Amino acid sequence: MIRWIAAIAAAVAGLAIAQPPRLPPVSMAELLKASPASDWRALEPENVMVMELPAGRVVIELAPDYAPANVAAVRALVRDGYFDGSFVTRSQDNYVVQWARPEEDERAKAMAAKTLKAEFARPMDSKLGFTRLAYPDTYAPEVGFSAGFRVARDPKRHQTWLVHCYGSVGVGRDNAIDSGNGSELYAVIGQSPRTLDRNITLVGRVVQGIELFSVMPRGTGTMGFYEKPSERIQIRSVRMLADVPAGERPDLEALRTESKTFKALVESRANRREEWFKEPVGRIDVCNVPLPVRAKAQ
Amino acid sequence: MIRWIAAIAAAVAGLAIAQPPRLPPVSMAELLKASPASDWRALEPENVMVMELPAGRVVIELAPDYAPANVAAVRALVRDGYFDGSFVTRSQDNYVVQWARPEEDERAKAMAAKTLKAEFARPMDSKLGFTRLAYPDTYAPEVGFSAGFRVARDPKRHQTWLVHCYGSVGVGRDNAIDSGNGSELYAVIGQSPRTLDRNITLVGRVVQGIELFSVMPRGTGTMGFYEKPSERIQIRSVRMLADVPAGERPDLEALRTESKTFKALVESRANRREEWFKEPVGRIDVCNVPLPVRAKAQ
Repeated sequence: MIRWIAAIAAAVAGLAIAQPPRLPPVSMAELLKASPASDWRALEPENVMVMELPAGRVVIELAPDYAPANVAAVRALVRDGYFDGSFVTRSQDNYVVQWARPEEDERAKAMAAKTLKAEFARPMDSKLGFTRLAYPDTYAPEVGFSAGFRVARDPKRHQTWLVHCYGSVGVGRDNAIDSGNGSELYAVIGQSPRTLDRNITLVGRVVQGIELFSVMPRGTGTMGFYEKPSERIQIRSVRMLADVPAGERPDLEALRTESKTFKALVESRANRREEWFKEPVGRIDVCNVPLPVRAKAQ
Repeated sequence: MIRWIAAIAAAVAGLAIAQPPRLPPVSMAELLKASPASDWRALEPENVMVMELPAGRVVIELAPDYAPANVAAVRALVRDGYFDGSFVTRSQDNYVVQWARPEEDERAKAMAAKTLKAEFARPMDSKLGFTRLAYPDTYAPEVGFSAGFRVARDPKRHQTWLVHCYGSVGVGRDNAIDSGNGSELYAVIGQSPRTLDRNITLVGRVVQGIELFSVMPRGTGTMGFYEKPSERIQIRSVRMLADVPAGERPDLEALRTESKTFKALVESRANRREEWFKEPVGRIDVCNVPLPVRAKAQ
């Protein structure tokens, strides 16, 4: 197993070569199985939301490096029990699900006028880390990965931002850029809506349970809102991972996006060598690269 | 209404300009409302499959220009009642649903060994028509639209092919390239799996009802297959539109992808000017461009 990991690492280093050597096929499962423990990181309990739905659990990792004020606001609302008993109020096919307290709710009314700084993009900073994906992207000058998240960069503007992919989680807003206050959140359940990049604040991504969102009945109202209150899906609770009792706690770890295993994974997904594939395309979109998360080895 | 249509047409003609003029905002609904009848085409009844599910109807348009042998095989199976009483046997999150007769079925057994020519790509031909989308694409040298379908081209190889986007429909196969015989079909329900392009035969796309597929419970078996036969979702019938009695027939028309309205639509989606958008990106991915289909005006 170690032998072809080394071969793949060599191939990754030589990505600029027009005709890379034909490597042995490797599945994602094999790559992950062969990875050293040091290529994984535990999720930070202060940056993870655990949502309990009737159908099961959704785990969302937050990205305070990219949206510190919005992540802090969401965390405070979670700790205040704001989302306990809130609802998925919208499910629009090939786009997003959204959750909030309904408009008529007293706590929602109290939040309605609250504003919060927009964090659509931030200055580039070498401290953030950036593993570049060296393939053309339709939407941004550079795309890649930063501490477990899919990101883009524009060196000319010296800006970087989280990008909208399947599972991305953001803060809903009205027309004013500061109108998203963290009390209404959405998750992407369709083709990456990259047009939203730099137009709305992303705060993280679903790392487990996105399929509980994606199968929710589509709303028949405008933009996929449920027309009748009875159609809404109630959220039992949302807690910060740090506040979940040890016995109930999902113990997850994520593959480090700056690790050798991740580089080999990207390369193997861009150049599928399994027998089924006949024409490896040699490219991959940032939203098609898997970001593995697994139960922590005990 | 006519005024900004003209303004948008002018802007489309000038796409190469770095700073396009700031046009008035226009929604897709407004653009379509203002379109002339000649910008629409009726769907060809011999190239449309109408699937009846317990939850409603899915309409699929086939693309015989891109996969003539496979479309003919699928059409023959449909007319032979092969898919009546077949099942959705697989639902894999962020990937595909798949339908077939179950392996143990007598008709499925009779089909199992049948092979059919792979049609992963075809020679470029000016008769096909091609409306290019002039933005960078991760996977192909050129992307665009051809007679209502999303396609890619490689002028160096003189090849063109249908691309995998949300709603694309293809012919499942095993490892041998000719092992897909049309008796097992799939539809994409997640982020565009473009790695499959030129590796499997696409035959068309869902033009209505994709949301009936995308909410199907995910299978818990390998690759999203349902583990228990009772989990499969039975398909009542699949008919060619030409064989559906007039009274039950979905009378649909599609926006011509070579029309001025479509060009204006692409431009307006690449440069969102609605008040909500603050940073129009000026680009759009081929899989994010909507392909409007509507009930035919009577």
